[in-house]
Amino acid sequence: MKTPENDVMLTPGIPMPPWLREMESAFADRLLSGDEAKMRFVIEIALENVRHETGGPFAAAIFDLASDRLTAVGVNSVVPACQSWAHAEMTAFSRAQHKLKRVSLKGCMLVTSCEPCAMCSGATPWSGVEKVLYGASRAMAEKVGFDEGYKGELWREEFERRGIRVTGPLLEEESFAPFELYVQKNGRIY
Amino acid sequence: MKTPENDVMLTPGIPMPPWLREMESAFADRLLSGDEAKMRFVIEIALENVRHETGGPFAAAIFDLASDRLTAVGVNSVVPACQSWAHAEMTAFSRAQHKLKRVSLKGCMLVTSCEPCAMCSGATPWSGVEKVLYGASRAMAEKVGFDEGYKGELWREEFERRGIRVTGPLLEEESFAPFELYVQKNGRIY
Repeated sequence: MKTPENDVMLTPGIPMPPWLREMESAFADRLLSGDEAKMRFVIEIALENVRHETGGPFAAAIFDLASDRLTAVGVNSVVPACQSWAHAEMTAFSRAQHKLKRVSLKGCMLVTSCEPCAMCSGATPWSGVEKVLYGASRAMAEKVGFDEGYKGELWREEFERRGIRVTGPLLEEESFAPFELYVQKNGRIY
Repeated sequence: MKTPENDVMLTPGIPMPPWLREMESAFADRLLSGDEAKMRFVIEIALENVRHETGGPFAAAIFDLASDRLTAVGVNSVVPACQSWAHAEMTAFSRAQHKLKRVSLKGCMLVTSCEPCAMCSGATPWSGVEKVLYGASRAMAEKVGFDEGYKGELWREEFERRGIRVTGPLLEEESFAPFELYVQKNGRIY
């Protein structure tokens, strides 16, 4: 049986957890200067995503490079949304483009709690962001069983070649905390 | 100003062009046996996407491997949806997962009018499909100016290693037709 949504939408929208809406609103007017403050913000979102059981232990955010202000947040929503593309970086890009009403996130940076996987690193140049900051290394994600995929050995050089600055891993110990909590809670590894 | 949708959705749903809804319905009960019939079907969708000006010259579909029946279609919707992730393969995965109500498309194949870009090939193992069939090579897409990104030299070996069979390029001349039409119509290259 087709639902009305199936009839009019090609792909479903992904609902926003209420706690995340509150965090995005609360931080919309605050300055988060420097890489570490931004990273701690996304690590806290990743922890909240695990605590609230609204997805995997990954979070991301888009910041305006010039003003240091938050543009949009994203969280891993793969299992609750039943959408394999719904990684934190992808939902952050999607939300930012929807809010700004433009495809290119030129002038913005991606801050993500973990090194982007093969899909998310492939998606990054298409998003238009000019800087990427990541927390945990792929080795840390793989340590708890997450598969990061094959993205080629030269992904970082390729980003730089395209004018996308990359910084990470950053705050590796803190950025491992969401994984630890997820494992403690027996979260699904996919 | 926030729209009501911004308040409740993390990411927006992507509307389905009415002509595509009709094509998906019309083919839902038909058998499309063999690789070439499936490829001609997605090439026709890509052409329609250009004719109707509902996105870029790319289309994809998910078929059930055992029955040869169509599960879901997808088209490039990047510009109309203002979403850089909305490549044909991605929207096809998303729609199929939504229709089947499961994250894993095990038992399914992806048929795409063009070799998957870096994002889409990174996304393919996460989708769970067991076979990929593509039409135009990346060289053909790049010939008209599309950027396919960096996915590493070993992407095909990596798919096979994960148990994903890859076939392509297939019907290269026919699969170039959507690009030709797009260029004729002065479509936006992004």
